[in-house]
Amino acid sequence: MAESWSFLDTFEPNFRPLVVIELAKGTKEETIEWFTKRIVDKKANGGAQLLVKPLVTENGDETIYLVGASHLRLLLGAETVGLVKECNDNSMRTFTYSSRKTFKDFADDNHNFLTMAECQYIIKHELENLRAKDEKIIPGYPQAKLYPGKSIVRRLLTSGILVQIFPLHDREELKKLRHSWYGRVKVGYQPLDEIRCYFGETIALYFGFLEYFTFALIPMAVIGIPYYVFAWEDYDKYVMFATFNLLWSTVILEVWKRICAIVTYRWGTLLMKRQFEEPRPGFHGVLGINPITGREEPVYSSIKRQIRIYLVSLPFVCLCLYFSLYVMMIYFDLEQWALDYHEENESNFSSLMLFVPSIIYAVVIEIMNRIYRYAAEFLTSWENHRLESSYQNHLILKVLVFNFLNCFASLFYIAFVLFDMKLLRQGTFDDYLELFLQFGYVSLFSCVYPLAAVFAVLNNITEIYSDALKMCRVYKRPFAEPTASIGVWQLAFETMSVISVVTNCILIGMSPQVNALFPDSKMDLILTVALVEHLLLAIKFIMAFVIPDKPRDIQIKLAKLEFESLEALKQQQMKLAAESLKE
Amino acid sequence: MAESWSFLDTFEPNFRPLVVIELAKGTKEETIEWFTKRIVDKKANGGAQLLVKPLVTENGDETIYLVGASHLRLLLGAETVGLVKECNDNSMRTFTYSSRKTFKDFADDNHNFLTMAECQYIIKHELENLRAKDEKIIPGYPQAKLYPGKSIVRRLLTSGILVQIFPLHDREELKKLRHSWYGRVKVGYQPLDEIRCYFGETIALYFGFLEYFTFALIPMAVIGIPYYVFAWEDYDKYVMFATFNLLWSTVILEVWKRICAIVTYRWGTLLMKRQFEEPRPGFHGVLGINPITGREEPVYSSIKRQIRIYLVSLPFVCLCLYFSLYVMMIYFDLEQWALDYHEENESNFSSLMLFVPSIIYAVVIEIMNRIYRYAAEFLTSWENHRLESSYQNHLILKVLVFNFLNCFASLFYIAFVLFDMKLLRQGTFDDYLELFLQFGYVSLFSCVYPLAAVFAVLNNITEIYSDALKMCRVYKRPFAEPTASIGVWQLAFETMSVISVVTNCILIGMSPQVNALFPDSKMDLILTVALVEHLLLAIKFIMAFVIPDKPRDIQIKLAKLEFESLEALKQQQMKLAAESLKE
Repeated sequence: MAESWSFLDTFEPNFRPLVVIELAKGTKEETIEWFTKRIVDKKANGGAQLLVKPLVTENGDETIYLVGASHLRLLLGAETVGLVKECNDNSMRTFTYSSRKTFKDFADDNHNFLTMAECQYIIKHELENLRAKDEKIIPGYPQAKLYPGKSIVRRLLTSGILVQIFPLHDREELKKLRHSWYGRVKVGYQPLDEIRCYFGETIALYFGFLEYFTFALIPMAVIGIPYYVFAWEDYDKYVMFATFNLLWSTVILEVWKRICAIVTYRWGTLLMKRQFEEPRPGFHGVLGINPITGREEPVYSSIKRQIRIYLVSLPFVCLCLYFSLYVMMIYFDLEQWALDYHEENESNFSSLMLFVPSIIYAVVIEIMNRIYRYAAEFLTSWENHRLESSYQNHLILKVLVFNFLNCFASLFYIAFVLFDMKLLRQGTFDDYLELFLQFGYVSLFSCVYPLAAVFAVLNNITEIYSDALKMCRVYKRPFAEPTASIGVWQLAFETMSVISVVTNCILIGMSPQVNALFPDSKMDLILTVALVEHLLLAIKFIMAFVIPDKPRDIQIKLAKLEFESLEALKQQQMKLAAESLKE
Repeated sequence: MAESWSFLDTFEPNFRPLVVIELAKGTKEETIEWFTKRIVDKKANGGAQLLVKPLVTENGDETIYLVGASHLRLLLGAETVGLVKECNDNSMRTFTYSSRKTFKDFADDNHNFLTMAECQYIIKHELENLRAKDEKIIPGYPQAKLYPGKSIVRRLLTSGILVQIFPLHDREELKKLRHSWYGRVKVGYQPLDEIRCYFGETIALYFGFLEYFTFALIPMAVIGIPYYVFAWEDYDKYVMFATFNLLWSTVILEVWKRICAIVTYRWGTLLMKRQFEEPRPGFHGVLGINPITGREEPVYSSIKRQIRIYLVSLPFVCLCLYFSLYVMMIYFDLEQWALDYHEENESNFSSLMLFVPSIIYAVVIEIMNRIYRYAAEFLTSWENHRLESSYQNHLILKVLVFNFLNCFASLFYIAFVLFDMKLLRQGTFDDYLELFLQFGYVSLFSCVYPLAAVFAVLNNITEIYSDALKMCRVYKRPFAEPTASIGVWQLAFETMSVISVVTNCILIGMSPQVNALFPDSKMDLILTVALVEHLLLAIKFIMAFVIPDKPRDIQIKLAKLEFESLEALKQQQMKLAAESLKE
């Protein structure tokens, strides 16, 4: 690859802008000059070897810059980020520039070999990995300190010099995507491959999960309708319904893992070894040698990280959960007080007062939620995770636990007053959070409220369309992020489905119909419920254990890759040994 | 490697016998001639290229043959079976003949580079992989059919022509091992590395686990003694003891996985990819191409295997479990009847009659156990597993479930009548089974019988010495079997520790002291117990999830190997692409 860089010219007649950089107004000339020079400078000089053009706005301000790259540069970048593409022999392989001819659909004049989302991801990666060399400060801003290995873009962002970086939309492509996605009335699956080409794997996987989840809920919804319509309240029917729901929820989560493996294998992200990549820009540490890849990069002791996670973040989260429960108790007291007041002095004022506790609680929860989210982001960032996925997982876990408690702990008391659910729907990862909470309503209390799945299905069908519309029309285009799974959400859904076994068993045990079956002994009732619960849990775990996470053919393909790479290592070793003998 | 085979000569002046082949008396001359020819024949002709010498016994019978191999042949065999050895740069790598000089302690005249156990394993592997080519029958035995790809040794064994194959002892080495293992009175660890060199990884891992397990039980034993001595029967102390035991058992099982990873990394078996090996000799199928390795070998549809496992073996095991429970019920009835009879007509005869049900039950259980084991072996063999480890795991699982039920189901009724435990100690995998049942006694009923751990520790200390003595003095030397873990036993111990949470909570809940704390409401008692149980289970699962299965440095080494092999594959790809361009 070393030679390729040398014959790479940054000049390209057809400049295709891919990414936008917005600098703060009044950014000093020398800073702009230095930054753009670093962007276009040769790799050998520590540059990103990209193309930059200023976009002169109506005001004449030069604060917006368009970034692009030559076709050759993008291909070399694809090698750097370790994209996996399909070969002519239908196997999936890590792309390298030298072996480009062996890849399917590759041609030197085929500029669509890389999807636009991939090109933008490459440019983002290259920009984020522009690292300081000898610079001690950002030129023109002596207070913005740099040290060797520090990500320049990261420092520019934290100093407020760089306002934002975002990928450009492509009107033509977007129009095509919109048409096939939600433009015409049709019954069918979403064009996941096209979504992936335009928005990247993370977004495509979200829509894939949303669609899968909706389909998977249909059997629950169909079975739930007669329970509601005929108001079946027999013990047997209830238990059957709940048991079906519990086992079904296990099955759908296991099957999703398999589908996810099939899809991400085709997209190449299943084989993409992101743990071997360069660290995320927010990661800091002293410059050292990565023990795995042997590359020079910032290193940070994992023991220090563990200490931060277990001795600081974990106690903090526990404290917040305790505090949140405490606030909830105060709310219940307040509400009781308002109720008592209303009963004693019934008037317009007192009936108005009935709403006050809920309003106060809603406001407090909202404030707590915001503060907590800010703290969680700060703590997770401070934990200094090397990989973006690991950062995301730890952040999601923190926010999830808090939201779960706030959302469902009150539910356990106040049943189905839904204001909380609406309230908690905002932030960065709302999409999965919403599905997660929905899954909670469907599975946790399925036997009390058999229509939950019906509403979930109806909601999700509209959700698919409204989310698609938002992605294409409302939101700024997000950067693609190659992923192979839905990450910690899988764990969250699985945990929820375990908890739902417990809640359903308790709810069934509490129902008057079941209580009537054990008129003499409450003890027998509880013991029976506990026995059933343990049996269901055992069946769940056995099922999760027995159903393989990846379909057999994907397993074979992965094993084949492992075998081939180990064989290649052996060959390499033998060649090296032979060479050392010759010397 | 292809060239190496051609300059390999089967002649070696110093013949060192390693493995013994015993043929049946009166085996036909032509069969012996054909078989020995296949053993010594060149690889290219489908032979094993080993050395054979007949051992003329006192009777003049030529039924015992000694098998050896030249040093070069063994090295090439080490490459074939994929042994992993330490390199000069302290990394662990798959051994190849061409890169032999890069390995630690390698020298052409160092015949100890491979341990004796490894040499014998190589010879066993080569003998078992002697496969039929054009032969339709074994010469001289028209009824012993062969087909292309069928293991010759396997057919000879099933036809009764081959009586046994076993590795030879080495008196000098054995003496040294005995001395350092149990020959002198000393306090210290067992010489695991030496045991591994002589008996292979499976045996060494068993002794390692036995020793680890004994040490791990000591804290439980130490805490248990005062409970017994002072007959502490307070609720708090009981709960503390049980809670400690439950969490401790989780910790020791997790830590064992880490220790196991450390030890087997050093031994090279952690990196040995046994799933890429040739199939076990008992595996049959039509000749085809292995989709992973691309080698020609028998292939068998995994769906067919799944069908056999889930539609035949599983129902059969369930039926046997049901039958076994049924027999137990009859036994209890019989015993009740004998007791009634004794009370009504008290005499010598009637008191003798009291023992009859137990004797009958013991005999019936013994017979059932033997039949079941035979059936389990037949079924597992019929399931046609490709890997020896997978065969073993499925067999162990079947036998385990049956023994667990027989051993503990009666215990749940008849508490601590130990005859069953002794009774069930025989068969092939007694060693782990004994520890498993012991772990059951220690963890399942820890709060009722606090001395269980003390006896387990005392028993295991003698066990280490008696097992070592048996290995060195009594048993025939077993073939080494490279393994990286204790396989399905890990799962079995973990499952036991989950079940023990349930039993301990029930036992504590049933104790009169705890009952006295809830004088008014049995319901509150049960709910409290259930709550505590769920909390303990949750803590267990979180602990198992949070403690990494491999220590950080082993994780790094494994990731490094993966990275290097993927890089090597990339390099190979690039080279191939460059070559195809030149053409």
